[in-house]
Amino acid sequence: MDSNFKYTMEDETIDDLQLKGLNLIQKKDGFKFGIDAVLLSDFACVKTKHRVIDLCTGTGIVPFLIYGKYSPQSVCGLEIQEDMIDMAKRSVKLNSLEEKVFFLNEDLKNIEFLKKLEKFDVVTVNPPYKLNNAGILNPNDKLAIARHEMLCNLEDVISAARVLLKDNGRMFIVHRPERLADIFTLMRKYKIEPKRVKMIHPKMGKAPNIVLVEGQRDGGAYLKWDAPLYVYDENGKYTKEINLIYGRS
Amino acid sequence: MDSNFKYTMEDETIDDLQLKGLNLIQKKDGFKFGIDAVLLSDFACVKTKHRVIDLCTGTGIVPFLIYGKYSPQSVCGLEIQEDMIDMAKRSVKLNSLEEKVFFLNEDLKNIEFLKKLEKFDVVTVNPPYKLNNAGILNPNDKLAIARHEMLCNLEDVISAARVLLKDNGRMFIVHRPERLADIFTLMRKYKIEPKRVKMIHPKMGKAPNIVLVEGQRDGGAYLKWDAPLYVYDENGKYTKEINLIYGRS
Repeated sequence: MDSNFKYTMEDETIDDLQLKGLNLIQKKDGFKFGIDAVLLSDFACVKTKHRVIDLCTGTGIVPFLIYGKYSPQSVCGLEIQEDMIDMAKRSVKLNSLEEKVFFLNEDLKNIEFLKKLEKFDVVTVNPPYKLNNAGILNPNDKLAIARHEMLCNLEDVISAARVLLKDNGRMFIVHRPERLADIFTLMRKYKIEPKRVKMIHPKMGKAPNIVLVEGQRDGGAYLKWDAPLYVYDENGKYTKEINLIYGRS
Repeated sequence: MDSNFKYTMEDETIDDLQLKGLNLIQKKDGFKFGIDAVLLSDFACVKTKHRVIDLCTGTGIVPFLIYGKYSPQSVCGLEIQEDMIDMAKRSVKLNSLEEKVFFLNEDLKNIEFLKKLEKFDVVTVNPPYKLNNAGILNPNDKLAIARHEMLCNLEDVISAARVLLKDNGRMFIVHRPERLADIFTLMRKYKIEPKRVKMIHPKMGKAPNIVLVEGQRDGGAYLKWDAPLYVYDENGKYTKEINLIYGRS
């Protein structure tokens, strides 16, 4: 850390990720990372030799978690919102990870830009998951941008992954089960074969409310289903599996 | 019943369906109906005014279960194997359901034949679920025909449903979760929108091994996930939900 550098603005806070001393700068009242980012990082398969890119990265939670869990060669985060990238870059400095974690302020629909990047082994993404059909949304509302398909939709995300991945590279996405038919059909359209699914249920016996999907660029057709994960037990407490993922075992 | 009619051959048996006194003629050593047919009949939404057709009907288990559960206007079963249809027709006579349950010995790939039929409100199907890539299979092996995609594949089944269904009619299919990407992409290809999914797990915490999917001809895009169903409890006994479906509550 550089004691002369001002890491945070007045409306920001530094949150301890409870993972190898890593911290993340977030807005006090803005979009904060949630269980989706934690589950996605846990679901991804990343090796130390891998180059990873995280799309719709926001303030960079997934790149920091991926770095903390897997120590890959490098992790890059891509985000269209400039002020979020500014926060993410200050988090890089705060964690002294300038050699390992990078952020790019770019629109993932800019395919020509993506084509110029060196290919990646792994793409992760926690995209906005609500269809942009919920009436008039404020285009300056950062929460709305993070949650609704205002600036990019699922097809934009999957077509970007197609361009960014190496041959046989893997994509990992977290989304809502209601969109699984869209995810599968768009992955097939862009020749990213769905290979593995994990369903997250709020508790045993309840319908799933989060889905994790792994796809492989030009992979062969075989879809494996992981054991489901239950978030809360019958007493309303986090299950053992969730505590393990959060490193609280 | 007609006491002068010979209902069964020597290698056949009459099985009590435990549902409104219905019986089914099956081979003693051949393909017997299993949990798939029971789950499919339970998952289907059928009204008394509906006309129903069951594809890949075999000896007719699904039509008889559908009739017993929902008393629709009529249920038709379609099957390519002549000896199975012969057994199914004898089961109709055995149950005195000549006015309600019908069987057709036809290939579902014969689209011209399907087009001549009056449209149906509901299509059910428990198709062969194994890809026809498991090496050389005996084309006379009736078990292999029922389990492997030898005489029809998933695309044949879904394209047949497209032709058979009324506008907004519903298709209900039971299959393996490994094929869900194929099911969704083929349904979309033939404009049968996936509307509802139910996953069956052998027990709580285990990956699903059976999937039930409801599609609607020209339906709008919204996919609902039912609560999952667990077949066995922690003591290795059928769960309450399974006993309910089997009418043993």
